[in-house]
Amino acid sequence: MNDHLSIGVDIGGTHMRTALVDARGKMIKHQKILTGISAGAKHTSLRLVEECRRLMAEAAGHGAQVRAIGLGVAGKIDPVSGLVLFSPNLPAMRDYPLAAELARETGLSVYMENDANLFGLGEQWLGAGRGIRNWIGITLGTGVGGCLILSGKLWTGDGLGFSGEIGHTNVNPDGPLCLCGLRGCLETYSSGRALVEGVKTRIAEKDLISGHLFELFQADELKPEDIYRSALRMEETVTHLFERMGWALGLALANLFTSLGIRHAVIGGGVSASWDLFIAPLMKSLAERCCMLNEHQMVVQRGWLGDNAALLGAARLVQISEAVLQ
Amino acid sequence: MNDHLSIGVDIGGTHMRTALVDARGKMIKHQKILTGISAGAKHTSLRLVEECRRLMAEAAGHGAQVRAIGLGVAGKIDPVSGLVLFSPNLPAMRDYPLAAELARETGLSVYMENDANLFGLGEQWLGAGRGIRNWIGITLGTGVGGCLILSGKLWTGDGLGFSGEIGHTNVNPDGPLCLCGLRGCLETYSSGRALVEGVKTRIAEKDLISGHLFELFQADELKPEDIYRSALRMEETVTHLFERMGWALGLALANLFTSLGIRHAVIGGGVSASWDLFIAPLMKSLAERCCMLNEHQMVVQRGWLGDNAALLGAARLVQISEAVLQ
Repeated sequence: MNDHLSIGVDIGGTHMRTALVDARGKMIKHQKILTGISAGAKHTSLRLVEECRRLMAEAAGHGAQVRAIGLGVAGKIDPVSGLVLFSPNLPAMRDYPLAAELARETGLSVYMENDANLFGLGEQWLGAGRGIRNWIGITLGTGVGGCLILSGKLWTGDGLGFSGEIGHTNVNPDGPLCLCGLRGCLETYSSGRALVEGVKTRIAEKDLISGHLFELFQADELKPEDIYRSALRMEETVTHLFERMGWALGLALANLFTSLGIRHAVIGGGVSASWDLFIAPLMKSLAERCCMLNEHQMVVQRGWLGDNAALLGAARLVQISEAVLQ
Repeated sequence: MNDHLSIGVDIGGTHMRTALVDARGKMIKHQKILTGISAGAKHTSLRLVEECRRLMAEAAGHGAQVRAIGLGVAGKIDPVSGLVLFSPNLPAMRDYPLAAELARETGLSVYMENDANLFGLGEQWLGAGRGIRNWIGITLGTGVGGCLILSGKLWTGDGLGFSGEIGHTNVNPDGPLCLCGLRGCLETYSSGRALVEGVKTRIAEKDLISGHLFELFQADELKPEDIYRSALRMEETVTHLFERMGWALGLALANLFTSLGIRHAVIGGGVSASWDLFIAPLMKSLAERCCMLNEHQMVVQRGWLGDNAALLGAARLVQISEAVLQ
């Protein structure tokens, strides 16, 4: 008997994850399927409705009801209207009423948030952020996402559909061009895309003319994890990309520690698998760039929940939202 | 009959201001005297005690009692212990128990805060920040101070003795050396000191070899306001310093708007008198560097309270602190 089940959803550019989660954060059932956004927003939406209905049936099989759905989307969203305003990884979703459609089709309340914000709620609930009152969350994926937990709550700013977007803070006004149109955003140094671009630049400059990465590049199949594996073998041509990644993360974190008067950060996302390659340069850069704190005061942790952080955060969002509504 | 009088104090490197302030923010009596820090911390402290006693007598003359003292200091402070930890403009105050001494000698409670934070409380209470839930405050003086008003309250972070220190966020990793030891802090572009250094550089590079500023430099009497007056006369050699000031402010604000998901700022401090010279480049740089907001969403206002902002903020601190304690 458990009437506190929630459905958590995390939609990315490639995959969407769904889970049936109990009140303590245990995943009773979870699944990962292709987002299939190339077939259009409607297609993705219908696939999601189908998945949620399946989990509702699963809950009924346990003699329980699903309370509501927590929905995480990579991009700028409007939590009030339920619109996906713009998502770089889901371009077909522009101004799409995903939350409203899901609510109508399932008969459940749907609470939507940016996926990096849900990473924050997940790690705060069950992960590295437990018991820390103020911290900065960073997700390293294709892009760089971020969130702020302030006074123990997810900070949503003026409710403009974004907050904690550390990935688009500037670390070098003359830096590389970012997808957002600006120069020198953190994301141009510390994302999976930055790693791939870094290798491509090396190839263009004839610094890399053979080997596994070169072959993957020629086959148009180069991925951040390949670069990570090469770096683990200490291939000089790529280790500097992770040093640069750490340098930029340290600088961006220093700016936020200084601005906010806080000293904790948690880093997750797929590309954080390369932790051992960037954490030393990160801590060095952070210590050099934060004049307000001593080195030993600053704490940067790796997330505990891996790929499930945002999914669990989505379930947590339901708990928080329904508690407020009651 | 008014039993809600407070004493506000604002101690800077050169002057200290004191005021007797009523519950609505009216200054019944106020004074500005030399800080005289060259004679030592004890000397300054005793002068302050004397001023406060005078204001207590003034209150008694009105048939009222002073509730408590709000004390603003330029520097890193520990509000709990009442220590001035370190103040660049008051080096003799390092680890000095200013608040405790003042409390002992006057018999009143003393609430201490960084002066830029009190600028925030003042402008929120009676100035440009009224009714704005989330905003960034910046004070342009010899250095660059800052504060954050979040959810309608002064944000103090983890209680580490600093917060809102936007002046020491980085706008250019290869920028000029800052007094704090780092390179490219906002303060190295947008402070009174940066203006003076900028003119000195021009002189060293033989770009400026005569005229009023050159003479002031030779007499070692060059001040930010002289540079401002020269720029008002559109002297090419110095107008670019204000463009650079605006550029850097826009970049630093863009980073914080992006990180916090907010869109308001208030700028004050003595050097903000040069508003007309830096606001256009500031807004241009802000629009160019903040990919999350449209230009018309971003609001940057000049403070309303001039030199009295921190003084009134100190009185406001008393109201807030005593309300919490009751």
